[in-house]
Formats: sequence, C-alpha cells, structure tokens
Amino acid sequence: DFENAMDEVKPAFGVESDALERHRIHGVIPHGPDFEHLTKTCKTLVDQVKNSDKTPMVTMLLEGAAGCGKTAVAASLALESDAPFIKLISAENMVGYSESSKISYMVKVFDDAYKSPFSVIILDDIERILEYVAIGPRFSNPVLQALLVLLKKQPPVGRRLMCIGTTSLVHVMESMELTAVFNVTLNVPNLNAQSVKTVLEHISAVSKEELDAATNLLDGTNGAGLPVKKLLLLVEMARQRSNEQTVPFSYLVDCMQDLSL
Amino acid sequence: DFENAMDEVKPAFGVESDALERHRIHGVIPHGPDFEHLTKTCKTLVDQVKNSDKTPMVTMLLEGAAGCGKTAVAASLALESDAPFIKLISAENMVGYSESSKISYMVKVFDDAYKSPFSVIILDDIERILEYVAIGPRFSNPVLQALLVLLKKQPPVGRRLMCIGTTSLVHVMESMELTAVFNVTLNVPNLNAQSVKTVLEHISAVSKEELDAATNLLDGTNGAGLPVKKLLLLVEMARQRSNEQTVPFSYLVDCMQDLSL
Amino acid sequence: DFENAMDEVKPAFGVESDALERHRIHGVIPHGPDFEHLTKTCKTLVDQVKNSDKTPMVTMLLEGAAGCGKTAVAASLALESDAPFIKLISAENMVGYSESSKISYMVKVFDDAYKSPFSVIILDDIERILEYVAIGPRFSNPVLQALLVLLKKQPPVGRRLMCIGTTSLVHVMESMELTAVFNVTLNVPNLNAQSVKTVLEHISAVSKEELDAATNLLDGTNGAGLPVKKLLLLVEMARQRSNEQTVPFSYLVDCMQDLSL
Amino acid sequence: DFENAMDEVKPAFGVESDALERHRIHGVIPHGPDFEHLTKTCKTLVDQVKNSDKTPMVTMLLEGAAGCGKTAVAASLALESDAPFIKLISAENMVGYSESSKISYMVKVFDDAYKSPFSVIILDDIERILEYVAIGPRFSNPVLQALLVLLKKQPPVGRRLMCIGTTSLVHVMESMELTAVFNVTLNVPNLNAQSVKTVLEHISAVSKEELDAATNLLDGTNGAGLPVKKLLLLVEMARQRSNEQTVPFSYLVDCMQDLSL
Amino acid sequence: DFENAMDEVKPAFGVESDALERHRIHGVIPHGPDFEHLTKTCKTLVDQVKNSDKTPMVTMLLEGAAGCGKTAVAASLALESDAPFIKLISAENMVGYSESSKISYMVKVFDDAYKSPFSVIILDDIERILEYVAIGPRFSNPVLQALLVLLKKQPPVGRRLMCIGTTSLVHVMESMELTAVFNVTLNVPNLNAQSVKTVLEHISAVSKEELDAATNLLDGTNGAGLPVKKLLLLVEMARQRSNEQTVPFSYLVDCMQDLSL
Amino acid sequence: DFENAMDEVKPAFGVESDALERHRIHGVIPHGPDFEHLTKTCKTLVDQVKNSDKTPMVTMLLEGAAGCGKTAVAASLALESDAPFIKLISAENMVGYSESSKISYMVKVFDDAYKSPFSVIILDDIERILEYVAIGPRFSNPVLQALLVLLKKQPPVGRRLMCIGTTSLVHVMESMELTAVFNVTLNVPNLNAQSVKTVLEHISAVSKEELDAATNLLDGTNGAGLPVKKLLLLVEMARQRSNEQTVPFSYLVDCMQDLSL
Ligand SMILES: Nc1ncnc2c1ncn2[C@@H]1O[C@H](COP(=O)(O)OP(=O)(O)OP(=O)(O)O)[C@@H](O)[C@H]1O
Ligand SMILES: Nc1ncnc2c1ncn2[C@@H]1O[C@H](COP(=O)(O)OP(=O)(O)OP(=O)(O)O)[C@@H](O)[C@H]1O
Ligand SMILES: Nc1ncnc2c1ncn2[C@@H]1O[C@H](COP(=O)(O)OP(=O)(O)OP(=O)(O)O)[C@@H](O)[C@H]1O
Ligand SMILES: Nc1ncnc2c1ncn2[C@@H]1O[C@H](COP(=O)(O)OP(=O)(O)OP(=O)(O)O)[C@@H](O)[C@H]1O
Ligand SMILES: Nc1ncnc2c1ncn2[C@@H]1O[C@H](COP(=O)(O)OP(=O)(O)OP(=O)(O)O)[C@@H](O)[C@H]1O
Ligand SMILES: Nc1ncnc2c1ncn2[C@@H]1O[C@H](COP(=O)(O)OP(=O)(O)OP(=O)(O)O)[C@@H](O)[C@H]1O
Ligand SMILES: [Mg+2]
Ligand SMILES: [Mg+2]
Ligand SMILES: [Mg+2]
Ligand SMILES: [Mg+2]
Ligand SMILES: [Mg+2]
Ligand SMILES: [Mg+2]
Repeated sequence: DFENAMDEVKPAFGVESDALERHRIHGVIPHGPDFEHLTKTCKTLVDQVKNSDKTPMVTMLLEGAAGCGKTAVAASLALESDAPFIKLISAENMVGYSESSKISYMVKVFDDAYKSPFSVIILDDIERILEYVAIGPRFSNPVLQALLVLLKKQPPVGRRLMCIGTTSLVHVMESMELTAVFNVTLNVPNLNAQSVKTVLEHISAVSKEELDAATNLLDGTNGAGLPVKKLLLLVEMARQRSNEQTVPFSYLVDCMQDLSL
Repeated sequence: DFENAMDEVKPAFGVESDALERHRIHGVIPHGPDFEHLTKTCKTLVDQVKNSDKTPMVTMLLEGAAGCGKTAVAASLALESDAPFIKLISAENMVGYSESSKISYMVKVFDDAYKSPFSVIILDDIERILEYVAIGPRFSNPVLQALLVLLKKQPPVGRRLMCIGTTSLVHVMESMELTAVFNVTLNVPNLNAQSVKTVLEHISAVSKEELDAATNLLDGTNGAGLPVKKLLLLVEMARQRSNEQTVPFSYLVDCMQDLSL
Repeated sequence: DFENAMDEVKPAFGVESDALERHRIHGVIPHGPDFEHLTKTCKTLVDQVKNSDKTPMVTMLLEGAAGCGKTAVAASLALESDAPFIKLISAENMVGYSESSKISYMVKVFDDAYKSPFSVIILDDIERILEYVAIGPRFSNPVLQALLVLLKKQPPVGRRLMCIGTTSLVHVMESMELTAVFNVTLNVPNLNAQSVKTVLEHISAVSKEELDAATNLLDGTNGAGLPVKKLLLLVEMARQRSNEQTVPFSYLVDCMQDLSL
Repeated sequence: DFENAMDEVKPAFGVESDALERHRIHGVIPHGPDFEHLTKTCKTLVDQVKNSDKTPMVTMLLEGAAGCGKTAVAASLALESDAPFIKLISAENMVGYSESSKISYMVKVFDDAYKSPFSVIILDDIERILEYVAIGPRFSNPVLQALLVLLKKQPPVGRRLMCIGTTSLVHVMESMELTAVFNVTLNVPNLNAQSVKTVLEHISAVSKEELDAATNLLDGTNGAGLPVKKLLLLVEMARQRSNEQTVPFSYLVDCMQDLSL
Repeated sequence: DFENAMDEVKPAFGVESDALERHRIHGVIPHGPDFEHLTKTCKTLVDQVKNSDKTPMVTMLLEGAAGCGKTAVAASLALESDAPFIKLISAENMVGYSESSKISYMVKVFDDAYKSPFSVIILDDIERILEYVAIGPRFSNPVLQALLVLLKKQPPVGRRLMCIGTTSLVHVMESMELTAVFNVTLNVPNLNAQSVKTVLEHISAVSKEELDAATNLLDGTNGAGLPVKKLLLLVEMARQRSNEQTVPFSYLVDCMQDLSL
Repeated sequence: DFENAMDEVKPAFGVESDALERHRIHGVIPHGPDFEHLTKTCKTLVDQVKNSDKTPMVTMLLEGAAGCGKTAVAASLALESDAPFIKLISAENMVGYSESSKISYMVKVFDDAYKSPFSVIILDDIERILEYVAIGPRFSNPVLQALLVLLKKQPPVGRRLMCIGTTSLVHVMESMELTAVFNVTLNVPNLNAQSVKTVLEHISAVSKEELDAATNLLDGTNGAGLPVKKLLLLVEMARQRSNEQTVPFSYLVDCMQDLSL
C-alpha cells in the first residue's frame, strides 16, 4: 500500500491550500482574550523560525479538549506563514498503513521539507498517528520513536522548519516524552460564557436579546467550557429544525438535551 | 480471502434491501413513548444530513442491551432514508478476515459511499467488528484506529454521509474513545411492563384477558427490562409447545423457567 | 495442513453415525429425574427448530462437570434428530491447525449445513476448540470471534440449524460472552447417590445387596456428585482386578483410594 | 528441521530398548513399601489396558521431586509391558523444534501407536516438552493443547494404548488441566531414612557398620526426603575421592557440604 | 533499508568532524567548577585508553537532565581526542530501522573501530537507540543485549577503544544493567545561579547591570537547575522579540512565562 | 547470519587456547583460603568426570558478583583440564543471532563435544546468552529451554563432558530452574580486606608500607567485598595518573571517588 502512498506525497515545494482550508471551514472566530494571546504567541514563534539564524527549527504542541479548535488554529498558522512548503501529516492519509509505511511516509515529508528554505509541518492528532488507545494502553512505539527523533533532529544548514503538533491527550504525550521533545506546549482554550456569546453573535445564531442566555449552554460541561466545534454543530442542528438562520435560543438547549450532550 | 471479498462489495450505488429487511424480520413494533422519542430524534438527524450544507456528515451510535432491537432500528432508518447508497458493515461478512483485510473492506465501503450524493453506512455490532473480548481485554487496535479515523473524516465536497453504529457495550466504546468520535450516542430501550403488553397485543400472542400478566415476564430481569428479541423467541417457543398462535400466558412463564432465562 | 483437512470434511449432506456412536459407547443410561427433565427440554428445542418458521436457528449450550456426559448427550440428540446433515466439530480433528485453518474449517461446516434443509452441528468441548488455558488466561481470540459470529448468524431463508455446544467451563464461556450468544444454557448433572445406584444396577456392576453402599462412592467429591464417565471407568478397573462382571463393592472403593480419585 | 526429524521417528512397530535402558542405568532398586505399592498399582493399570475391552486407553501421570526416579520407573514399566510398540517422547529429541514441529512429531508418534494392537507412549518431563518456565509463566500453549487432545482421544477400535507422563511440577500440570485429563496421577516418593539405608546397602556404598548413619544425609532436605538420583551421584563422587567402592560414610557427608547440596 | 544504510557507514578510518561540530553549535562554554571537574575526569580517561597497555577499552556514560549538554560534551571529547576513527551512533541515522538492522549497523561500527589503533565511539541518547518509552515500559531488548555485549567485549590485541554513551534516563539505564557495564558513569550538571550568569555574560545576552537577576530564571525549576540548551533557546527568542543582541532581562523572564517553561 | 556463523565453529577436536587465555589476561592470583577451597572443589569435579565411569557428565555453575573473576576461573579450569575439546559459548559470538541460530549453534557445540572422549564446555554469562533483562523480565525462553535440555542430556556411551556455566544473577537462574539442572552451584568470592592486600602485593601496586590501608578500598562496597576486576582497573588508572608502576595509595582512593565507584 505504501508504494502507492508515496506517489501521493506532493512534490517537495508546494502548499496544499485546499486541504488546509477545509480544516477551518467555519473560519477562525476570535472569541476572546485567551484565544488572542495564544495566536500572538504562536505567530512570534513562527517569525522566530523564519528570521533567526540560531534557531532553524522550533517545535510547538497545541493541546486542548476535543473540538476546541486545535486543527483549525494549526491550519491557519501554516496558511498565514507564507512558507513555500506546508504539509499536514494526518492519520486520515495513513488508514491501514503498516508501522513502517507510516514511518517512511513521515520521513519523506521531513526530507521534502528539508529541501525548502522554510517549511511548516503539521502533525495533526498525534494520538491517532500513534494509534493510541487508553486500554492497555496500546500505541505504535516505532512510530512514536520516529516522531521523537524527527522532532529533535536539526534541519540541514540554511533550512528552517516549524513543526506544529496537535493533541487532545496532553498527559499521554507527557508520559511518552513527546512534550519534552517539543520546544513549547500551548493550550487551546474551550469557550467560556463570554466567548460563547461572541461566537453566537459572530454567526448571527440567535437574536441579540437572547445572547445573554448563552451561559446556559455551559451547564453540564462541569466548568470545562464548550468546544467551539460542538457549538457550531449544535447551531446547525437547531437551524435545521427551525428552518431559520437565526434560531430561538431554546432550540439550542433542546438539541443539547435531546442528544444528551 | 480478501481479494474475493472485494468482489462481493456491491457497486458504488445501490441498496441491499433484502439483507436489510432480514434484520427487521419481525418488523419494528412501536412499543411505547421512549421508543418513539428515539426514532423521532434519529429521523431529525437523518434529515439534517440530507438537507444541511454545513454538516455533510453526522455519526450516531445506537447502544442498548443485547436483543433490545438496535440492528432492526438501524436497518429501518437506513431503508426509510431514501439514500441511493446504503451499506451494512457487519462481522458476519468478515469471518476470518485478517486485520488489514477488514480495514481495506471498510475503507472501500466508505470510498464507495463518498461517490454517492447521500449515503448511509451501518456499522453493526462494533464490538464484534473489533473482535473485542472482555478477557484481557483484547481487540483489534488497527481496526479500531481505522474506525476512529473514518468516523471523523469529512466526506468530499458535495457528498453527505450518515453513519450509524450499534453496540451492546457502550462503556467499552467509551474507553476506546469511540463515543467521543460519534456526534451522538442514543439509547435503545428494553421493554418495560407497558411495552411488553403492547408487543404481546400487537402479535396476538396471548388472549386479551391475560395481557395484564405481562409484568410477570419482567421478574428476574432485575429491573433491566426485557429485550424485544428474547420476548419474540419466547412466544415462538410457547407457540411450538401449545401448537397455537395465541398461547396461554403460563406457557410463556414456563418456557422462561425451563430455559432459566 | 488445512488444504488436506478440507478434503476430509464430509460431503454437504450426510451423517457421521459411526463417529457419533463412539461418543456414547457406554450408551446413555437414564439415571434419574434431573437427567430426564434435561433430555425433555433438549428434544422440545430440537422440535422447535425442525418445525417452526420463525425460529430457523436455535443454539444450546450443554455445560457440566468433566465426565458428566455432555458429549454423549449431544451425540444422542443429534442422532435422534433425523437431520440429514449432522457434523461434530471437535478439537480432535484440528490438532495443530493454525487459527485461520480452524476458522476456515468451521466456516466450511456451517456453509455445508446451510445447504441442508435441517442440520445439527455439535461444537464439542468449546474450551479445547478455543485452545483455552486458565494460566494467563490464553485462548484463540480469532477462533472465539468466529464462533460468536457463526452462532448469531441466521441461516439462509428456508434452512434450519440446531447448534449444540458442550463445555466444562461455563464461567469462562460467560466471560467470553458465549453464553450470551447461545439462546439457551442447560446443565448436565453429575450423579447423586440415587443415580449412582441406578447406573450400577443398570450395568449389573455389583450385587443387589450391595447397591445401597453406593453413596460411599460420593465421599470425597465434596457434594459435587460423581461423573458418570469416572464411575464407568472405575467399574471397569474393578472388573479387571476381580476378573468378574459383577464385583464386590469394596473393590470399587479400593480402586478409588488406590488412584486417589 | 522437522522434515529431517520425521525420518528419525522409528518405524511404526518397534521398541527402543537401548534408549529406554539408558534411562534406568543404575537399575531400579526396590527401596521400600511406598515404592512397591506404587509399582503394583502401575502394573495393574498396564494389565487393564492390555486385557480389558472397555478401556482401550489409560493415561497415568507419574509426579515427584526432581531426581526421585520418575523416568526410570516409566521406562521400566514400558520395557516390562511386552508392548510391541513403545515410544519415549522427550524434549531431548526436540531441541530447537518449532511449536508446530513438536506437535507434528507427537501426532506422528500417536498415529504410529494407533497402528499397533498395544502400545506404550512415555511423555517424559512434560514441563520441558511444553517449554515451561515459572517466570511469567511461559509455555507453549499450542503444544499443551495438542497434549490435552491427544491424551483424551480414544484409539481406533481394537487398539490399546497406555500413556505415561512424568513431571516434577504437578501443581503446574493441575493449573493446565493436564491432571484432569490423565485418568490417574501417582506420586513417586523420595527416599526416607529407611530407604536411604536400603539403597546404600544394595550398592555396597558404605560398610554395614556405618549404614545407620544414613539418616544424616537427610538433614537439610527439610523432611522432603532425598532423591535417589542425587544419592547415587553423591556415592559416585565419594568413591572418586576415596578411590574405593565402599567409602567411609563421612565422605558422603563431606561431599554434600562441599557442594552445598 | 539497511542494505543502503550500510553504504552510508563511512570508511573504517575517518572522522565526521562536520557532523560532530554541529552537535556543539553554540560551543562549549566553561560555566563553572563542577563542569570543569567533569571535563578533567573525562580527559584523563581518554588519555588512559590512548596510553595504557592494560586497559585497551574504557567505557563512560554521561548522564544528566534533558538539554544539560551531554551530546556537546561527548562531541568535544571525541574531536579533541585526536583519534583517527570517530563515529557517532545516533537514532537519527536509524529512523525506521528494524531491530536487526540497528544491531548490524552498530556491529559494523565497532568492527570498523577495531581496525583503527585508537577509536572513539559515541552512543548518543541511548534511550532513543533502544526505542525506550516509559509506558509499559517498552524498548528493544535485542538492541539492548547487543549493546551490553559490545560494551563489554575487549577490542583485538593492539587496538584501543573509548566508548562514550549519553542518556537523560540514568535510572532506566541502571535497571537495564547498562550502568553496570559502563566502567564509569559521570553526571553532566545543569546550570546553577552562578553558571547561568557565566553563560549570559559569555554570550553578551544581557547588560552587565542586569546579570545579577539571572537567579530569577531558576524559579520554577524546583532547584534542578536550568539546562544550558534551554537557556540558549530562550536568549534567542528574546533577541528575536527585542531585535537586539543584548536584550532587557525582563524579556527573558517574559518568554519563559509565555511558553510556560 | 547463522549460516556463516556455523563455519566459524572450530573443528570438532581442538582447544581455543588463545581465546581462553584472553579471559585470564591478568592471570589468576591466589588471593586467599576461600578462593583456594573453591578451586580445589572444582578440580575434584573435573577429575571425577575424567575418571569415573558412572558419571560421564557433570555440570557446574560458577556464580558471583560482577567482576569477581568467574570467567577467568572457568577459563583456567578448562585450560588445565587437558581436555582435547574445549569450547567457550559466549554471547560475544552470537550478537544479533536469532533465537533459533543461537540454539543451533549451541547444539552444534554439544554435538562436537560428544565426538571427543573428554570435553569441556563453558557457558559464559548465561544471562547474556539468554538475553535476560530485569525489566519485565524478558529473556529468550527457547534458548533457556534448549539449555535446560542440553545440560540434562547424557553424552553418548564412552564420552565424558564437563559443563561450566557462569552467572552474576544466581537468583534469576534459580527462578528459571537452571540451578536445579546444574549438578553443583559454587560461589566465586569477592575480595575481602585480606585478599585485597594479597592482590595489591602480588602486582606491586603500592609500597609495602601502604599495604595496610587496603581496607579503605572496601568502604562503600557495603561489606560485599571488592571485585578483583575492578581493583585491577583502578590500579591501572592510578598508574596512568602517577606515571609509575607502584602508586601512592591515596591515588587509588582518589580514583575511586572521582569515578564515584
Ligand atoms: N477561534 C476558533 N478556533 C478554532 N476553530 C474555530 C474558531 N472559530 C471557529 N472555528 C471552527 O471550529 C472548528 C474547530 O474544529 P477543529 O477540528 O479545528 O477542532 P479540534 O480541536 O482539532 O478538534 P478534534 O479534537 O476533534 O481534533 C473548525 O470548523 C473551525 O473552522
Ligand atoms: N420496536 C422494535 N425495535 C426493534 N426491533 C423490533 C421492534 N419490534 C420488533 N422488533 C424485532 O425484534 C428483533 C430485534 O432484534 P435485533 O437483532 O435488532 O436486536 P439487537 O439489539 O440488534 O440484538 P443484538 O444485541 O443481539 O445485536 C428484530 O427481529 C425486530 O424485527
Ligand atoms: N445418562 C448418561 N449421560 C451421558 N453419558 C452417559 C450416560 N449414561 C452412560 N453414559 C456414558 O458415559 C460416558 C460419558 O462421557 P462423555 O465423554 O459424554 O462425558 P463428557 O461430559 O463429555 O466428558 P468430558 O468433560 O471429558 O468431555 C459415555 O461413555 C456415555 O456412553
Ligand atoms: N527405585 C528406583 N526408582 C527409580 N530410579 C531408581 C531406583 N533405583 C535406582 N534408580 C536409579 O536412579 C536414577 C533415577 O533417575 P531418573 O532420571 O529416573 O529420575 P527422575 O525423577 O526422572 O529425575 P528428573 O526429575 O531429573 O527427571 C536412575 O539412574 C535409576 O536407574
Ligand atoms: N558547557 C557546555 N556544555 C554543553 N553544551 C554547551 C555548553 N555551553 C554551550 N553549550 C551548547 O549547549 C547545547 C547543549 O545541547 P546538547 O544537545 O549537547 O544537550 P543534551 O544534554 O545532549 O540534550 P538532550 O538531552 O536533548 O540530548 C549545545 O548547543 C552546545 O553547543
Ligand atoms: N583469583 C582470580 N580469580 C579470577 N580472576 C582473577 C584472579 N586474579 C586475577 N584475576 C583477573 O581478574 C579478572 C577477572 O575478570 P573476569 O572477567 O573473569 O570476571 P567476571 O566475574 O567474569 O566478570 P563479569 O561479571 O563482568 O563477567 C581477569 O582479568 C583475571 O585475569
Ligand atoms: Mg483536530
Ligand atoms: Mg444487533
Ligand atoms: Mg465431552
Ligand atoms: Mg526424568
Ligand atoms: Mg543529546
Ligand atoms: Mg565473566
């Protein structure tokens, strides 16, 4: 399977804009100060790789709850980096690969990146790339070891590389020494009451009068906040039921209960 | 084995109506308000996939006790969806397959589905597809990982996909992160006293006078209710012994005891 | 090895009467009311498959202590069912088979059975088919999974199938979900004092005067009763020592002690 | 490796007298009543197989401490059985065999035995045949499963088979269900004070005057008795040091201490 | 993959100066007495191998926290040894190798070293070479065993060999008996307050006035000191933000907080 | 790899004197009464094999702390046995061998030994031959099983065989039943204060005046004594530093501290 897979790896220079755009299909809504501080830090790091001579490689891990927006943030950073080579490494492109095929695939992506003066590689959903499951736990140690080495290996002289990983299981990454190998680990926050409002307003989901009711949507999340991805799905369901773009707020609450979210 | 198996995959467009009908051979008896609320929610979700632009894929897990009717409900939803492509993925079609054959088979089904404007895929008895056994526990991690990815991967632009999984082991699915990957998890209820009556009446199993005795059948189920599948088997046995369609209620009770159900 | 093995599978229609007879070489002695209730229930179930339209497949698990007579009962049921296709699946025919050979063999037997209007399949000593050992525990999960699927899969339209499993390890079967997949689990009882007498009398093992001493043989079995198979072996040893068909009862007791049974 | 090994299997009929004699190189010294009771029971069982029609196969497990004489007893029984086919299955002949080669080898031996009217098969040091080690524990489950089946399978009509197993690890055999599959388990006793004397006298190891000191050799064995094999090795060492057949008793004690036995 | 890899092994005699220089890209700053005592001991050991007849092989393990400078120290020792053969064995050159390829690769390096009168071999990041992960834990036992043997095996007569290993996981090395096999285990220290100052001064990172604030950088390290590698990265980031070589000290503190180091 | 390895096995008759000599490169210094008692016992055993008819094979395990001199003692015994066939089985000659290659190699050595009237086989560092690691623990069970059989198997009529094993992990050997299979287990002692003096004097390491200070070297060994191998390395280091054969005693103490031995 891998031989064919190899052909699918895009030529060394190039950006898969379409694929990346699909990962921020609902855009990236600036939903509050926490989120903005995060993006600012990220951009400084990208700039550092782009410009500094002494740090030709920086590796950054974006961690946060399922659906909080990690992949969308990573895709945005990459698209806005102006890097001539951008590549998203995702389990979606490796379904059914053997361990050695996965490793060869990743090595090839890094080798291609080394040929470009400045590259961005996204390692999306690292737990999935590693085939991690909590029962056991089990995962592919060879793939993990390859990642540990690739993330620490310096690019050739004159090449610059930004690696962005994403994960919902930061504690697992820690026990695998992956956080130790990333230069930086940054949290992508869930939505709090204020940012739920900001998002609902931004997409005109409910009438202005009902915006204040937004905090209700946070009940049942045990203070962990609401993932932006779930909120957007919920709005879509409510719109389907009410047949309107702007829906009565009670519809959102009903949907949540019906689906026991 | 898989090469032959591949040929058996029906052409991309098509519905295996016969196979699906066999999974609701005793029909789907509307046995009470809980059950009706369930089917209403399910149908709304199917409609959402069919009509909404922003949610081209919805994934739903039907969970409930052994024999409560999960497969019959899933088959009904699919048949009534009017989707041009419907496919049931079941361990029955993969006996003795290697892990990689299973994965290739499932990938092929999803690829076929992606070619149809609207598709329904049923993943029946996920624990069996994963070769799960509680001792250990053991299961096929590669197959699980493929499912985790396929259930999260968006279909191509313009394609819509409804995925319905069924399982009797919802807690196992949780520890495998499968519930996290399904958009929605819905419970298919067992029969309570009232719905046992409704079913017995519906199939004229006992005389009207004896209908009230139905609650007796719930003794020994520790309040967990009676699976509709077991009730229908029991009626069939009693009919065999009494040689009548409508049997004395005591026959049902006797059968249960004889078989120490 | 399996290629040859496949040839050994008898043609689709046919009954291995000789092989089955050898499993009840000492006959089936009706040794008491418990045993007769068991055989009556079994026969009702066989009749149900034979005659009912709505239950084309019934699966029954015979469980009981080592040597209590499970295999003999299953062989008798099969022989007396008048089914045109009867097949005994036993580890004896699969020594040294790989897991996939075992699965193919069993699939072939079921496929053959599906071709006959009415079939009986015996899965003898399921723990041995699964290569179960308590240390670990270890067993063949692929073979187990194939069994779980084959025992749940409905035969084609118009075909009827009775599956009879036997096991000494019912608790192991439970933790493997095998009992959940069998429609019915029935206990084959060991001999109590009364039934020991019945058996000894039936085979003229001791003189009528000494029959009452039979309960002595139950000492040391901790109330678990005596397996009919052990009793018959014991009688044979005593006959060998005494050189008579009818032996002094003390000979039986001596043999038991000598062999620290 | 196995292909060659197969050629080494002696023709179906035949007795490896030389090989068997080598396993009782120091003879079998009748060292006391316990030992004689054991051999009497064994011989009765051999006779039973030889003569009875109803018990064409008997299986017997000889268990006891390392060096207590299990293999010598089994070899003697076989040699004195007058069986036309005798075969010793031992790990010595299977060093480096794969699991499937071991199984094929054993199946072949049993198949050969089935061709002779009366056969004796010795399974020497079953823990070694199973590659058992207490750490883990580990062992070959496929080989164990083959043994469990072969030891339970009846020979063809008209053939008789005596199987004798030996083991130092009877508790391990129990947890593997091997003791349940052997018809009889018999203990081969270590030497107590009286039997140490008998042996020393029998081989003229010490002068008559010093015979009473024999109990001293049992110190340090924690009441578990002395294995006959170790005693014979010890005498041999003392003879080497003293350069006489009959040695001063103190030499035996010295040797034991030097070697911290 | 290994066949090609073999070609990449440099000819028997030769020093990969460039590769080694890249591992001390920021030089080796003499940051305090602990560090100097370490380098003195190391050099004595190198001299011993070079000159002594009776100790043709010495093996040394450099252990210390991640980023404390182990690899740079090992590379410097090697470069300054004047050995005609120097080789760095690193997981970077073995990504995706099978266990046996790794072993062959290492055996080849040692064999090449044996051909030179005096050689230095660096085993960098031994935990990575062994594919160690704390979960389980898992690692390649065959590779470990090869290391245990190669590190104990004496070179041929007349050849001298210095082996330098590096690791961040000295306790793991101990439980693998690797520390027992190295002649010497030496700690590479993290920076304390005084040595942080020395480094900052050495690279003119902050103004002389602000040097005393350096101890602040040790907050949050729980007294474990600061790895020199992290300090250099931090300075580089601050320089990027401030656009100056010499940065305000508060910038360093800010960077640390932003990145929650 | 093994095919080539097979060629390396020396012809059946022959002694690898050079290889053996290299294992006692610093000679065997008679350092005290414990050591002499050990060598006397060993030699008696060698003589026994050489001369006795009834014990054609004796197996002896030398156990003791790392570096206490086990291999040197075994090599000396072999060289002084005057056996026409001597072979050292060591992990050094099997790096990277598969399990089956190791077993074939060992079988070949034993087969060669069986062709000589009198042979000595050394199994050096058994834990390494078994690829033992305490984590898990893991080791090669097939290799262990081969050893267990080879060490128990009697040589052909007229052949004599002495097997000497060495190990630092006697408790591991016990749990693997290896000590049970060796006829004798003997401890090779570490140096106590008196024997440290004897060794230092023997090699003129320190002046006569300073000999009494030797006990200081035992501090930090927790009463476990000092391995002769470490003492000789230490002397060599001190000689290197002082540039004299006879060194000031304080140099030895310094070296120990520097290296935190
Ligand atoms: N501020 C925002 N940050 C991130 N995503 C946003 C934001 N605003 C809107 N979105 C939209 O929300 C969705 C976030 O989903 P995304 O897949 O990135 O989450 P995720 O954390 O990667 O989820 P998962 O844990 O399932 O991988 C995207 O569709 C994105 O377009
Ligand atoms: N309301 C109902 N819901 C579901 N099934 C019904 C209903 N009424 C009747 N049935 C019949 O009951 C049976 C339900 O069996 P089904 O195999 O669907 O259960 P299941 O939960 O999938 O069982 P399992 O846990 O064994 O997979 C079917 O034969 C179906 O025709
Ligand atoms: N009533 C009876 N029920 C069963 N077996 C009987 C009965 N009467 C006599 N027998 C004889 O007893 C023996 C029972 O042995 P069988 O192998 O069937 O027992 P089992 O429970 O299958 O043993 P195992 O647990 O070893 O598989 C047979 O030889 C059978 O002919
Ligand atoms: N009464 C006796 N019973 C058994 N062996 C005896 C007896 N008298 C002398 N011997 C001799 O003692 C030795 C017993 O060794 P044997 O190998 O049979 O013991 P074992 O129990 O099989 O040992 P292991 O546990 O190592 O397999 C043989 O050499 C045998 O000739
Ligand atoms: N005194 C010093 N000792 C070591 N490294 C120094 C020193 N001074 C400056 N450096 C620089 O610091 C960096 C140390 O990084 P190095 O990779 O050697 O650390 P490491 O301990 O091997 O890290 P890791 O644990 O990640 O393998 C190098 O860039 C080196 O040039
Ligand atoms: N009395 C002695 N006994 C053993 N070795 C001695 C003695 N005197 C000097 N030596 C020397 O000491 C060294 C002992 O090392 P040797 O490798 O035999 O130890 P070891 O116990 O096998 O070590 P390891 O546990 O590492 O295998 C040899 O170089 C040997 O020449
Ligand atoms: Mg994501
Ligand atoms: Mg179902
Ligand atoms: Mg049976
Ligand atoms: Mg024996
Ligand atoms: Mg390093
Ligand atoms: Mg040694």
